[in-house]
Amino acid sequence: MEPPLKGVIKDVKGRAQCYKRDWVGGICSGFRILAPTLYIFFASALPVIAFGEQLNKDTDGLLSTVDTLASTAICGIIHSILGGQPMLILGVAEPTVIMYSYMYHFAKGQAGLGTQLFLAWTAWVWIWTALMLILLAVFNASSILGRFTRIAEELFGMLITVLFIQQAIKGVVGEFTIPKGENEALPVYQFAWRYINGLLGVIFSAGVVFTSLKSRRARSWAYGTGWSRSLIADYGVPLMVMAWTALSYAVPESIPSGVPRRLYSPLPWDSKSLQHWSVAKDLFSVPALYILAAILPALMVTSLYFFDHSVASKMSQQKEFNLKNPSAYHYDILILGFMVLICGLLGIPPSNGVLPQSPMHTKSLSVLKRQLLRKKMVETAKEGMKQQATNLEIYGKMQEVFIQMDDDATETAVIGKELMDLKKAVVRGESNGEKKDQFDPEKHIEAYLPVRVNEQRVTNLLQSVLVGVCLLAMPVIKMIPTSVLWGYFAYMAIDSLGGNQFWERLCILFITPRRRFKILEGDHASFVETVPFKAIAGFTIFQSLYLLLCFGITWIPIAGVLFPLPFFLLISIRQYILPKFFNPHDLQEMDAAEYEEIAGAPARARSLSFKLSFKERDLSAGTSDGIETCDAEMLDEITTSRGELKLRTRSFNDDRLPQVYQGRL
Amino acid sequence: MEPPLKGVIKDVKGRAQCYKRDWVGGICSGFRILAPTLYIFFASALPVIAFGEQLNKDTDGLLSTVDTLASTAICGIIHSILGGQPMLILGVAEPTVIMYSYMYHFAKGQAGLGTQLFLAWTAWVWIWTALMLILLAVFNASSILGRFTRIAEELFGMLITVLFIQQAIKGVVGEFTIPKGENEALPVYQFAWRYINGLLGVIFSAGVVFTSLKSRRARSWAYGTGWSRSLIADYGVPLMVMAWTALSYAVPESIPSGVPRRLYSPLPWDSKSLQHWSVAKDLFSVPALYILAAILPALMVTSLYFFDHSVASKMSQQKEFNLKNPSAYHYDILILGFMVLICGLLGIPPSNGVLPQSPMHTKSLSVLKRQLLRKKMVETAKEGMKQQATNLEIYGKMQEVFIQMDDDATETAVIGKELMDLKKAVVRGESNGEKKDQFDPEKHIEAYLPVRVNEQRVTNLLQSVLVGVCLLAMPVIKMIPTSVLWGYFAYMAIDSLGGNQFWERLCILFITPRRRFKILEGDHASFVETVPFKAIAGFTIFQSLYLLLCFGITWIPIAGVLFPLPFFLLISIRQYILPKFFNPHDLQEMDAAEYEEIAGAPARARSLSFKLSFKERDLSAGTSDGIETCDAEMLDEITTSRGELKLRTRSFNDDRLPQVYQGRL
Repeated sequence: MEPPLKGVIKDVKGRAQCYKRDWVGGICSGFRILAPTLYIFFASALPVIAFGEQLNKDTDGLLSTVDTLASTAICGIIHSILGGQPMLILGVAEPTVIMYSYMYHFAKGQAGLGTQLFLAWTAWVWIWTALMLILLAVFNASSILGRFTRIAEELFGMLITVLFIQQAIKGVVGEFTIPKGENEALPVYQFAWRYINGLLGVIFSAGVVFTSLKSRRARSWAYGTGWSRSLIADYGVPLMVMAWTALSYAVPESIPSGVPRRLYSPLPWDSKSLQHWSVAKDLFSVPALYILAAILPALMVTSLYFFDHSVASKMSQQKEFNLKNPSAYHYDILILGFMVLICGLLGIPPSNGVLPQSPMHTKSLSVLKRQLLRKKMVETAKEGMKQQATNLEIYGKMQEVFIQMDDDATETAVIGKELMDLKKAVVRGESNGEKKDQFDPEKHIEAYLPVRVNEQRVTNLLQSVLVGVCLLAMPVIKMIPTSVLWGYFAYMAIDSLGGNQFWERLCILFITPRRRFKILEGDHASFVETVPFKAIAGFTIFQSLYLLLCFGITWIPIAGVLFPLPFFLLISIRQYILPKFFNPHDLQEMDAAEYEEIAGAPARARSLSFKLSFKERDLSAGTSDGIETCDAEMLDEITTSRGELKLRTRSFNDDRLPQVYQGRL
Repeated sequence: MEPPLKGVIKDVKGRAQCYKRDWVGGICSGFRILAPTLYIFFASALPVIAFGEQLNKDTDGLLSTVDTLASTAICGIIHSILGGQPMLILGVAEPTVIMYSYMYHFAKGQAGLGTQLFLAWTAWVWIWTALMLILLAVFNASSILGRFTRIAEELFGMLITVLFIQQAIKGVVGEFTIPKGENEALPVYQFAWRYINGLLGVIFSAGVVFTSLKSRRARSWAYGTGWSRSLIADYGVPLMVMAWTALSYAVPESIPSGVPRRLYSPLPWDSKSLQHWSVAKDLFSVPALYILAAILPALMVTSLYFFDHSVASKMSQQKEFNLKNPSAYHYDILILGFMVLICGLLGIPPSNGVLPQSPMHTKSLSVLKRQLLRKKMVETAKEGMKQQATNLEIYGKMQEVFIQMDDDATETAVIGKELMDLKKAVVRGESNGEKKDQFDPEKHIEAYLPVRVNEQRVTNLLQSVLVGVCLLAMPVIKMIPTSVLWGYFAYMAIDSLGGNQFWERLCILFITPRRRFKILEGDHASFVETVPFKAIAGFTIFQSLYLLLCFGITWIPIAGVLFPLPFFLLISIRQYILPKFFNPHDLQEMDAAEYEEIAGAPARARSLSFKLSFKERDLSAGTSDGIETCDAEMLDEITTSRGELKLRTRSFNDDRLPQVYQGRL
């Protein structure tokens, strides 16, 4: 048992050393910083808007998009200035919304609370939550982070996906019906118009899902310039939402206004939004009994937030990103506690670390730095080769460049470790004279150069401010048809499946035995080859049943508030029960903390395509555009849509491939 | 100049020798014959229904689906019994429909004709056409077939595609408006219902396009059993049409009947359909002037039919299919002449050879035979290898098997030629001891075994009869919503693009230079590598402009009837003018009669996947299902959706690949 505050103090010390640099570095990168800022802003603003609409439905309009946006902006700004890990992106997430719907349905039914005291009561929930979070931080709870394994995390992700789909379907079906609490006599709710509204809903939501999914893959398209491709790939989803919103205004005049239905939300300057300032004052009108009762939901939310916040933070600083600055798990939980308190007293839903935006954030920043580095090192290498230097000498030169370019003065030992792969690649050429293994600066440097991330607080601050600005843009945001948001929910669900190993294993179960080789041909996690099918099937079926259980719980009216429980149960199940049924190696493989990938057949093609694109870059004298696209594309290929990095060095040793197949059959 | 009837007589003699076998062979194959029959039936019935609806719109209901079905059935039956090449599938095609719309708009405007004499007048057009076709046959016109190059054929295909798309768009837009000649006062045509009809139209047509395109690729899916996969791949499109039709009945009660709009057509036993018997009797009520005027359209149709019929026939007997029985181009044109006459006098649109159904027909039959052959030969080969026989001996054994299994007693010399590739593959192992080149019966036999087609007339006859049966099923067919058919048109258009080299070249034009390597990674025609980009661009742009010209002509009210003209012009342009601008080798490459493919990167993966699937087949003791699927899948992979065979032997020498890339960069 470590002494209290140990973790927090350590974190504070660690971050203090780089705090100044966090700002200077950001400001120095100048305008280039705007690209990742916008990227993250759109990635985090859209879901918040969508959740706002969901919240609005679940709380009969008591809370809405204004509140979710406000919370995201406030917490984001606080965190980016006072927070520990600036890579971490905050926002109102799905679990929060679900919790609210449970709490609302509970409060509504209680004579002592009712809708008017609902926010005051939730304030108590958040006060308790804040307290618990602060205690967790003080007592170094984050040190147990290691015990969160993939299984719990993915199961949780899967549940969220299922809930998204459910929300999307509910939403679209709802477009055909009269929203509750509306005046049925209104002409808009006549059957014909309602049906038209429904059909438009189907078209818009389907359109959003389809086009968004397509646009995500834009970077690898063959058509269009690199510039336009990456624009579509980065901003495709918001662009599609805008496009379909614009299209929704193309309905003929003769259709009454109100068809299609659009986002409902009061404006920030409406009296309805200003009620929030009065929440704190009602605090003690809440009966004592309910104040105590608030502890139960608080417990749940605490565990959820602790879990989410830490995992998101962890994802945003995976070791492959080679972040220079220290982590700050304990301290961030502390800060989270205070932010929850503030939001609670304002009666708005608090924010916490979100996935996949946080790793996306790191990823978007890791593009900036590598261009210069790469270019310089390639030059050095070529120069060296001209001078017939031995590969070892060349490597030496490159390391020098690397160090001098690397403004943060890290001791050579570390870099030596980082560059080990590169060194191997360079020197290998010596030993065997084969053409294939010859060191090719263009190819190998790109492949083995450790990712460099521009760690700073500016992007995070700016994007939070932009989210705040959205509040003023509410009149514009209200133009979005609700059906577009349902489509967006479905998109989020489908998109989140990529890289979810649980999902991949589920798919494998449905592949006929004689077709399994097809898995090996595609990118695939290593477990496919090392774990016997029986074990995969057993593990996956267990996980699916468990998922059903969790999903079932969310349907229980008020006890649903307990839905996070099974996930924490799972952690101990994983530790004590599962090992009894599965061989530890298999478990380890299927429950690996990172997403390891070995190169299937396509990887071969891919590595080839890299080689080609580099060759081309030579021809096109490496215009910054060309390189940027290519860097981004490469990063796309080595990260899952959950923002996890796959191990990629392997995808360059081609010889491995055939053995894989033989080994398989 | 050959003596008249020479060709016809030669054809008749040739076919006479195998006529008996055409029937016996078919009947002997028993129930297995039903699969290809159904496959072709659905493939040819749907378009005919769709064209019927188009014709119905273009002729104000004078002609409809009943007539197109009737013509297809009648001509099909006649051809399958009396025709020359039984692989050839007949049907009413798009050009015929277009011709009708021009002729109708002309006739309607003429005081001397009007709608009541329209059919009688067209009868004259068809009489002239029949006459000309017969003359063409008599004077061996088919011997100039060789002069039809790819360019004209593909340009024509492209025009049809464009017209399909146009038809689909027109159709869907039409769903929002009141059909001309309808009573606007009807409640169904109130704005709200009309708009609902339109939206449903959008949903249904989009649904059909999307699901049909997906289902086409079913055979390569990883999910589902081989059986269900091939079911979906073969019958997916009709299944989707049925599914969406069924769905169209899910609209709520409150919507007035008539929304969504459904196929309109009189029943075969309605008086409206019986008018056709009176057409012949009005023949001489047509003013002499118009009888002469009928020569012009007749000229166009003749050239069209001669062109289409011969090309379709040619496609259905490509040399890779190794058909045993002789062709019958001249004779088939003669028969076509008589069929046109009959249809003309009945006042129904005549049928001609259709693409891609004809090659699809041959393809579907080439599956049946190879299973047994393959199995037997693999066994022999393995046996031989067990006995440590030299590869040459093994080959000898296999040839024996091949010959004895090959019921049609062809002289060994021919087979020797056919099996040359296989022989090479077998013997090569000797020369160089490398593992890769070792002869692998599973792999090589499949790869080099010449395709065997079960040539007979039964499938063709049965499918024509089934089309006839559709006439009785009209009440069911009338349940199909028109919007589903528009979707089907769009599907046909998109589907026809695959394997159209003109389209592929168009795409290449839009790929940014630094992305061109992506073409090389995929399957690609050889010209991509051998022809300089400038030439490709020039040739393609010329073709596109020419296409615009042709498309423009179709918009000219009555002169539109001349739209086939430019295509025949093109043949001479190709011969005399193009060579002045392009280097003959390039022209040859881009205008090659066959679709040659060299193996891009995926082919490597493909050949691998084959190896795997065969290995697996061993495990699964080669259940007939397994093999059938796999044969079919292989045939899918080696044929374009236009039913053309790609050269596949190359896809097995892997070493070629790298050179391709180096050669490129």
